[in-house]
Amino acid sequence: MTQRTVDLNADCGESFGPWRMGADREILDIVTSANVACGFHAGDPDTMAETMAMAVAAGVALGAHPGYEDKQGFGRRALPMPPAAITRMVAYQIGAAQAMAALAGGALTHVKPHGALSNLASADRATADAVAAAVKAVDPSLVLLAIATTALEHAGRDAGLAVAAEIFADRAYEPDGQLMSRANPGAMVHDPALAAARVVEMVGEGVLLAHDGTRLATAVDSVCVHGDGPQAVAIARAVRDALEAAGIAIRPFAAGAGR
Amino acid sequence: MTQRTVDLNADCGESFGPWRMGADREILDIVTSANVACGFHAGDPDTMAETMAMAVAAGVALGAHPGYEDKQGFGRRALPMPPAAITRMVAYQIGAAQAMAALAGGALTHVKPHGALSNLASADRATADAVAAAVKAVDPSLVLLAIATTALEHAGRDAGLAVAAEIFADRAYEPDGQLMSRANPGAMVHDPALAAARVVEMVGEGVLLAHDGTRLATAVDSVCVHGDGPQAVAIARAVRDALEAAGIAIRPFAAGAGR
Amino acid sequence: MTQRTVDLNADCGESFGPWRMGADREILDIVTSANVACGFHAGDPDTMAETMAMAVAAGVALGAHPGYEDKQGFGRRALPMPPAAITRMVAYQIGAAQAMAALAGGALTHVKPHGALSNLASADRATADAVAAAVKAVDPSLVLLAIATTALEHAGRDAGLAVAAEIFADRAYEPDGQLMSRANPGAMVHDPALAAARVVEMVGEGVLLAHDGTRLATAVDSVCVHGDGPQAVAIARAVRDALEAAGIAIRPFAAGAGR
Amino acid sequence: MTQRTVDLNADCGESFGPWRMGADREILDIVTSANVACGFHAGDPDTMAETMAMAVAAGVALGAHPGYEDKQGFGRRALPMPPAAITRMVAYQIGAAQAMAALAGGALTHVKPHGALSNLASADRATADAVAAAVKAVDPSLVLLAIATTALEHAGRDAGLAVAAEIFADRAYEPDGQLMSRANPGAMVHDPALAAARVVEMVGEGVLLAHDGTRLATAVDSVCVHGDGPQAVAIARAVRDALEAAGIAIRPFAAGAGR
Repeated sequence: MTQRTVDLNADCGESFGPWRMGADREILDIVTSANVACGFHAGDPDTMAETMAMAVAAGVALGAHPGYEDKQGFGRRALPMPPAAITRMVAYQIGAAQAMAALAGGALTHVKPHGALSNLASADRATADAVAAAVKAVDPSLVLLAIATTALEHAGRDAGLAVAAEIFADRAYEPDGQLMSRANPGAMVHDPALAAARVVEMVGEGVLLAHDGTRLATAVDSVCVHGDGPQAVAIARAVRDALEAAGIAIRPFAAGAGR
Repeated sequence: MTQRTVDLNADCGESFGPWRMGADREILDIVTSANVACGFHAGDPDTMAETMAMAVAAGVALGAHPGYEDKQGFGRRALPMPPAAITRMVAYQIGAAQAMAALAGGALTHVKPHGALSNLASADRATADAVAAAVKAVDPSLVLLAIATTALEHAGRDAGLAVAAEIFADRAYEPDGQLMSRANPGAMVHDPALAAARVVEMVGEGVLLAHDGTRLATAVDSVCVHGDGPQAVAIARAVRDALEAAGIAIRPFAAGAGR
Repeated sequence: MTQRTVDLNADCGESFGPWRMGADREILDIVTSANVACGFHAGDPDTMAETMAMAVAAGVALGAHPGYEDKQGFGRRALPMPPAAITRMVAYQIGAAQAMAALAGGALTHVKPHGALSNLASADRATADAVAAAVKAVDPSLVLLAIATTALEHAGRDAGLAVAAEIFADRAYEPDGQLMSRANPGAMVHDPALAAARVVEMVGEGVLLAHDGTRLATAVDSVCVHGDGPQAVAIARAVRDALEAAGIAIRPFAAGAGR
Repeated sequence: MTQRTVDLNADCGESFGPWRMGADREILDIVTSANVACGFHAGDPDTMAETMAMAVAAGVALGAHPGYEDKQGFGRRALPMPPAAITRMVAYQIGAAQAMAALAGGALTHVKPHGALSNLASADRATADAVAAAVKAVDPSLVLLAIATTALEHAGRDAGLAVAAEIFADRAYEPDGQLMSRANPGAMVHDPALAAARVVEMVGEGVLLAHDGTRLATAVDSVCVHGDGPQAVAIARAVRDALEAAGIAIRPFAAGAGR
């Protein structure tokens, strides 16, 4: 029996001061969960407030999107830190996001790490545990949004957190479930129709589709789409339309995320 | 009838990365409330975690000490910002502090603005309202710790917040209740015995003592002492000892702060 | 006799990390002098290197565009600082820009303050003197690019610096030569043809044209155009074309700026 | 024949905003070369100005001490960056330091990388070349101050720069010339008399003394002492006194550094 509901999530609020990034307004009309940058790799209190107010108005669930404190590198450079410092860095950002959500008249529902922190938490269990520990300490009712089949998904479940497993609409997978490196020419899916068809199959059947045809069974609670890049909004829209056409309802995972 | 209990508070956690400031460990043995810098004018997630863990171990109540985002200027330079941006900046820091308190096994009880933000919130009602709005939006059960008789005290009460009014052990007052400017040679009290005697009189009788002899009636819920400067710990200790010798118990204000 | 040559300048390199701002590539085909952000209000070493390499390739003169250290506020908020600290802040940025110019195979020719620092240096002589002192101390052969008729123009000349006086293609003037505040609906000129005609008249006749018809005599060594905003490149191109059609050659001021 | 002159260098200007670090005033009475932090890992324009003014008054040569842009980590965390970005980052800081030196009435003579950048430039030739390229592009007359026998020493010489090789008064060496890791209990020399005796032997005979007795021949143009830590000033003073007692004059390397 195929899955009947799924969440769509996107990273939002990645502007900073005078600089704009991403089509937040358009993407918030498509997704059901927004991962809002917390002022470390991007964002600032004004950007967070504006983004969260838009999300609340659009009925989109609010998440924290913590990253390394490195705006110049956009959180894409791994800063050497012991796990306890990662826990503190993530906890700080979750708290800030909770407060900004309250100020926007909403409430934080989930946490998804960004960039190099996400990469490291996907591959390295100590980092994954450090991220999960931050969520658990600050608010154990928050859902941890983790890339399906990664160390972070396992760390979250082992910590007793509600975990939502996400797949990517526009990224190719290796046979072991890892995202194909962007350095590889086939790493990105640029065609909206192809992206949409892949997502429908992955969500409907609960599998990751690797580039070599491998099908890896997984929970799929959310689909990550993007708000920046020339094709991003078109892909996001195509994915949503195709899921709905296939009879799969788009709903926030927060209510249904299983432990 | 004289007052029988009062809180002692101090600013803590004002180190940053490799740089130390303040005798936090010594001062946490003396005070009952710690106002912890939130990473904007000073502090960082590691410093906050270390400071809050010490405070929890010492049984000291945890407060947020938000300031302007200006480490080079230590939050002592007023950055021109509209009130809504001040609310967002303060809300962000309160949330971060709540999370770090949870990580330390404690809970945030109060908020006290720092430096130029405190100066502006004391004198300018729009700024004071912006600070109070942040507290109210993030967690209306938090106590606002305000300098006695200032715009911030009034803004907090008008917002329906619990407000604790503080006096300074080591600062002279103008007849209207304002702190004497540090540019004035008599602005600081350096003698521990004199500071202690003044505090006992102000707390015991519920007045501010101005430099010209004026006595201004006020609520006194807390006494601010300092952990940096050559005399600071000695003054703090003298103040505590003198209050106890006068039969005034030292207790955190959080429980007793009146609306 | 009308003026036969003038410089065109634009602010460039105001991207930061992953965030883009301004059509630098297009504008560098139009102007003769580029004012490159120095990493305080915008820019970073990579952005400076990329921008300066483009400018050198386009034969455009390199200037430093120092501002307050406030990326979130884009240098548009005046941070309270004593004049000596302004001199240090500006000197630091000039030196950084000189080094980046050398790395790009060029050499710095001029300095133009940004945003709130420019506003303050235009109106307040102590700030203007502080900026001029930085230029003089770091390299007295650098040209100070100042808004025509302002305190900064006077401070530069009094310091013995070569000063280039600039007018704005897209801004209205008050009768006393001040730029009309952007809060005023008529402050900006949006029509390329109108902007171009005004510039030709101001350059050709050596006057500022105020909104009430006042004509204020001034040196005009450069015309400031912009690289961001929907009309900016079109205005810049129209200004250049109209000046050339009027027989006024577009040349960098650096060679001809008079003391 | 033993060496008759050597330089003493120390890192200075590592305060930041309100936070103090290091006994700069005391150490500037002992050393002949100061490596001044450039605002990335520590320092700011005011701190640089104050430090350089003290150094100029003490007749101490001014150097740039560039590091990773990471004040919280004090430049001790290696930020992943391609070599070209390292060149830009170092060039920027050298230029800033040159300007601040000019403002202080002096001139920059040398460059010495800090912390994780120094570690990486010592061990990794690509990083070493990136640092040398920055020095060469900004001002090829600057001396590169490199740890004796490291990749940075070789990179500097191969780039045609004047290189000064330094040894450490208070650190143990491995047989291959690397500094022993601080994680090792014997890594630091705490006894002033022992540090002084070792330095006299290393300078006098032109060798590194490894912990196992290995003697590695090397140029020794400078001895690095420190201004922070409980024993630092005492060690620095003991080293200077012992060198002078051994008939070795203390002179800045800048004049005598060989290509």
